[in-house]
Amino acid sequence: MLSIEIELPPPRTTAERRRDVLAKLAEGVDIWVASADSSGRAHLIPLSFYWDGERLTVATPVNSVTGRNITRAGCARMALGPTRDVVVFEGPVEVIPVEEDNDLASAHAAAAGFDTRGSQGSWIFARMTPQRIQAWREVNELEKRDIMLDGRWLA
Amino acid sequence: MLSIEIELPPPRTTAERRRDVLAKLAEGVDIWVASADSSGRAHLIPLSFYWDGERLTVATPVNSVTGRNITRAGCARMALGPTRDVVVFEGPVEVIPVEEDNDLASAHAAAAGFDTRGSQGSWIFARMTPQRIQAWREVNELEKRDIMLDGRWLA
Repeated sequence: MLSIEIELPPPRTTAERRRDVLAKLAEGVDIWVASADSSGRAHLIPLSFYWDGERLTVATPVNSVTGRNITRAGCARMALGPTRDVVVFEGPVEVIPVEEDNDLASAHAAAAGFDTRGSQGSWIFARMTPQRIQAWREVNELEKRDIMLDGRWLA
Repeated sequence: MLSIEIELPPPRTTAERRRDVLAKLAEGVDIWVASADSSGRAHLIPLSFYWDGERLTVATPVNSVTGRNITRAGCARMALGPTRDVVVFEGPVEVIPVEEDNDLASAHAAAAGFDTRGSQGSWIFARMTPQRIQAWREVNELEKRDIMLDGRWLA
């Protein structure tokens, strides 16, 4: 069997990963959102997001699968890609009807490129305050992939 | 408010999406795997995959969150990115201990770039037979995003 050795770049430090994650959050538009219903059936969809410096906000119709799952569970798992430059976010999620926070609606519209207030039907914002963030590229970064725990950035 | 109009390419036909999805499956290495536990807590992680022409196989330690969730639920939702070129797969998932199918282990190793048989601990293959596949790029492709339903490619 032919074996090919690929030289990986050295693993990034925690501080480097934090810097890269904040850059992704500032630039990014879409995030993968995984949620589940009470029977443990998983859903997964990409949604546009807005990052306010501490919290991730996505918008979804109140009656969509993601909207129903997050309203029920009050939590979700979100991830930025690509799959070889992963950032995973976990934390509680607040559900806010879009008509109840006009400032958030404006900020989300500017970041996401569409305005929920002009969209058909009832929409909600799902706003996660990450408690845990993990960041890794290749297998040599799996160790030390936690860069936030209990809501605190690790040094 | 400044409004910017971006010209999107015309939506792909069902046949074009199918061709693009099969190319992604042939070339791709990693897929997002969403699963959930019995309380409806979602998990999400990228895993290397092997596509045999009809089924998607990923490997995971039997005691990982994904391993436990899929063993319990017998289903998952998987997605190929990036987030503006999405393919979503849903279907039942068989769980196969890696030592029980040596041909599958070899094929997975060749596609995924690592051999579960040399990995520490007990590993399983989770093999999905997609029943529903959706493919879209931008908002103008949300309509007609189903390209497989009930296990059949749509025309």
